[in-house]
Amino acid sequence: MPDIRLHDIIAALGGELHGDGNTRIQALAPIENAGADALSFVSHPKYRQSLLASKAACVIVPPDLKGVAIARGACIVSDTPYLYFARLTQFWRKAHEAQHSTPSPHGGIHPSAVVDASAQVHPSATVGPLCVVERGARIGAHTQLRSRVTVGHDCVIGQRCILHAGVVIGADGFGFARDAERWEKIEQLGAVAIGDDVEIGANTCVDRGALQDTVIEDGAKLDNLIQVGHNVRIGRNTAIAGCAGIAGSAVIGPQCTIGGGAIVLGHLEIAAHVHISAGTLVSKSIHKPGHYTGIFPLDENANWERNAASLKQLHRLRERIKKLESDAKP
Amino acid sequence: MPDIRLHDIIAALGGELHGDGNTRIQALAPIENAGADALSFVSHPKYRQSLLASKAACVIVPPDLKGVAIARGACIVSDTPYLYFARLTQFWRKAHEAQHSTPSPHGGIHPSAVVDASAQVHPSATVGPLCVVERGARIGAHTQLRSRVTVGHDCVIGQRCILHAGVVIGADGFGFARDAERWEKIEQLGAVAIGDDVEIGANTCVDRGALQDTVIEDGAKLDNLIQVGHNVRIGRNTAIAGCAGIAGSAVIGPQCTIGGGAIVLGHLEIAAHVHISAGTLVSKSIHKPGHYTGIFPLDENANWERNAASLKQLHRLRERIKKLESDAKP
Amino acid sequence: MPDIRLHDIIAALGGELHGDGNTRIQALAPIENAGADALSFVSHPKYRQSLLASKAACVIVPPDLKGVAIARGACIVSDTPYLYFARLTQFWRKAHEAQHSTPSPHGGIHPSAVVDASAQVHPSATVGPLCVVERGARIGAHTQLRSRVTVGHDCVIGQRCILHAGVVIGADGFGFARDAERWEKIEQLGAVAIGDDVEIGANTCVDRGALQDTVIEDGAKLDNLIQVGHNVRIGRNTAIAGCAGIAGSAVIGPQCTIGGGAIVLGHLEIAAHVHISAGTLVSKSIHKPGHYTGIFPLDENANWERNAASLKQLHRLRERIKKLESDAKP
Repeated sequence: MPDIRLHDIIAALGGELHGDGNTRIQALAPIENAGADALSFVSHPKYRQSLLASKAACVIVPPDLKGVAIARGACIVSDTPYLYFARLTQFWRKAHEAQHSTPSPHGGIHPSAVVDASAQVHPSATVGPLCVVERGARIGAHTQLRSRVTVGHDCVIGQRCILHAGVVIGADGFGFARDAERWEKIEQLGAVAIGDDVEIGANTCVDRGALQDTVIEDGAKLDNLIQVGHNVRIGRNTAIAGCAGIAGSAVIGPQCTIGGGAIVLGHLEIAAHVHISAGTLVSKSIHKPGHYTGIFPLDENANWERNAASLKQLHRLRERIKKLESDAKP
Repeated sequence: MPDIRLHDIIAALGGELHGDGNTRIQALAPIENAGADALSFVSHPKYRQSLLASKAACVIVPPDLKGVAIARGACIVSDTPYLYFARLTQFWRKAHEAQHSTPSPHGGIHPSAVVDASAQVHPSATVGPLCVVERGARIGAHTQLRSRVTVGHDCVIGQRCILHAGVVIGADGFGFARDAERWEKIEQLGAVAIGDDVEIGANTCVDRGALQDTVIEDGAKLDNLIQVGHNVRIGRNTAIAGCAGIAGSAVIGPQCTIGGGAIVLGHLEIAAHVHISAGTLVSKSIHKPGHYTGIFPLDENANWERNAASLKQLHRLRERIKKLESDAKP
Repeated sequence: MPDIRLHDIIAALGGELHGDGNTRIQALAPIENAGADALSFVSHPKYRQSLLASKAACVIVPPDLKGVAIARGACIVSDTPYLYFARLTQFWRKAHEAQHSTPSPHGGIHPSAVVDASAQVHPSATVGPLCVVERGARIGAHTQLRSRVTVGHDCVIGQRCILHAGVVIGADGFGFARDAERWEKIEQLGAVAIGDDVEIGANTCVDRGALQDTVIEDGAKLDNLIQVGHNVRIGRNTAIAGCAGIAGSAVIGPQCTIGGGAIVLGHLEIAAHVHISAGTLVSKSIHKPGHYTGIFPLDENANWERNAASLKQLHRLRERIKKLESDAKP
């Protein structure tokens, strides 16, 4: 573990330090179980009690906790404690790697990877062990394919992307035409175009387009085990949680968030700044920013069974209410 | 990109051409953004306006758009425009590969693949980079394992199948017997038997049977990230969209479609020609062909919260209506 | 297939045999289609008719079917027939392997695997073809990484675990802090700690913790295509079915079962002995053992449409009932 003095952190990341800059930090930890050698953070005044109870050597706090924090001990005041903390984790990783001579991979194709001669891999990009990069694919500067990633033919990955283990970019989209009882394959002639600063989680799949490209714009973040169908477009900085599925030709705007396990049906459009709750099925286009949900509420199974049975009668209940209302009229 | 004259397409695929057979086609494109060098299609009279507005060099149309299409420009009349288009994509891919000397893989085991000496791989089959084919497995003629596919021991894949990157055929089914607080593993002694003309999407898993084989019949199409449990049988030409899960011992008939993210519980039977909406949980057997759904409708979150709260009272609301009805009786 | 006499089975596994111990068994089979050379089992008196109709050479039965079973033919009486059967499958596999000289892998690193020099792999552990084991990872005794498994840096896997093909342990958790419109990555500085006797299904992902470790306790069983987020803790002997997702920092107690496709939201706590139905979204902590469900009931699509439309009016229906009740009062 690194062993860093507080004033080195301030020198690297800024922020207003209160306390002894020579204090040594040996761990980053959540506020609840930070030890006396740890640096932690609280992002909101509601965590005031946790702050007061913490043994942390130093805590990153927002301005409105400054007084409380100083009374407790060392602190770093930041307008955006969580963002400060994010940058600290990056600083910490680099310090750790420097001390242990185990740098993150930066540049180079692992000898076990299978990279087609016609693929273009930027010299600063990393192609990890047992990856496959097919003909005509292009991997941008500083992009990392961690391990066992497949990038299909003619797909393009931008700069500073991270593709985690097991990712598949550019498998065929799911396209078939009916021929009486059987299915005739529609060859998928497009590719996948991924922008800069995109992160894609383990075992997530992004299919190639049927005629044109499937597109993931700059800064989008995809968690693990997500399915992105052919011809989809995912907007700038949109974040999608694990197990979600985006069906073919859906267009999702920028700055959206999509919860885990949500499904977006094909050919829909979702505006910018739309937030979809986990587990929701999106069955129609959403043109207005906002927060949308469609989940059956959790209940004890016995209660659920009664309500579920009634639910199948709901339109009849509505008719019965209408009749009661009508009968009640003089 | 290929550069093909219309009469070459007619020669290969048939259809009734209206217009100049020497017209050169350099792209296939959706009707909305087809350029003057592109061939496109419309499959239904409702797209009449798109047809009229299109700049496409030629459009494949159904007979009832023939008059409109001819007035616009070149067209190919087909009883099944979408199927015609599917075959055209196949023709196009071959033309593209011929021009670029980048043929699709046809035959051969990539040197990076790990194929057991006792496995039988047909000479016309392709085992792509970094695949694993275990002992006793059999891979049929013209079948393609794209890259990083695992076919477990004793599993059989038919002819002309495509298994996309990351597919796992023949992992152990999820079988355990309770032994007080712990679980005792039930060895999975069956295998997986996959018919001909089956396509399986990226990172999809088909588990081996406990005692007998898990079976996927001819012509079935599975999208990405699907889980198929042990002892399942999936019928002929059934198509399953991404993120679906089919639990152990479920039997799904032929000619079904199952939407994305749907879950079919274990030991159920689903008849032929059943269509399950995306996101639906199938909790009981379905013996009648038809279209089945079970999804909480999407709503703005604030509305959803009110309705969800009321839903937990639904059986009580039903009682209250009954009482009102009873009281209203003279 | 093995060819084993009944008294060899009794010698190995115990149980009370009724019938000729020299009877030869050549297959294990489900009761419905067991042939005259097969050993089968029934675990519950409700399968009495299946038992009577079976052609099996011998059937494992619970004590209360003993009389019926003996009247039918050979049987093995056991207090826990299903558990007995589980152990029989293990015995059967070993017998099969002994006869065919195709032992399960026990020990050794496949030459195609990429194992960092600093990783510790126990000599009795198996690292299968095309696996990746990164720096500082530790793989315990008798643990099997089947094929194409990634174990990330510093992750620890206990003893007697099975990780199926495509599993990813220790990809980065999904952690980002907002920086105006873009996302800043939170480096994931924890690892994954997996106990003993854990089985993890094909293409399942367990992310590394942000600051501390993601933990899976002894005896837990995870099916295929499951997402386990960062900082999650999964309790001892908990079993999770395929396609489930456990969001970051959720803590799931021991002895739970979570159905296929269920989603547990982040930062929740689930007590011991909680059972979640398949397809359920768990949106709040569960402090009491029991069975919990939240699923929209399956219906014919036309019925579903009517009920779904009414559902969006549900809180208004409730108001209307209240008004009727109020008006009905004298």
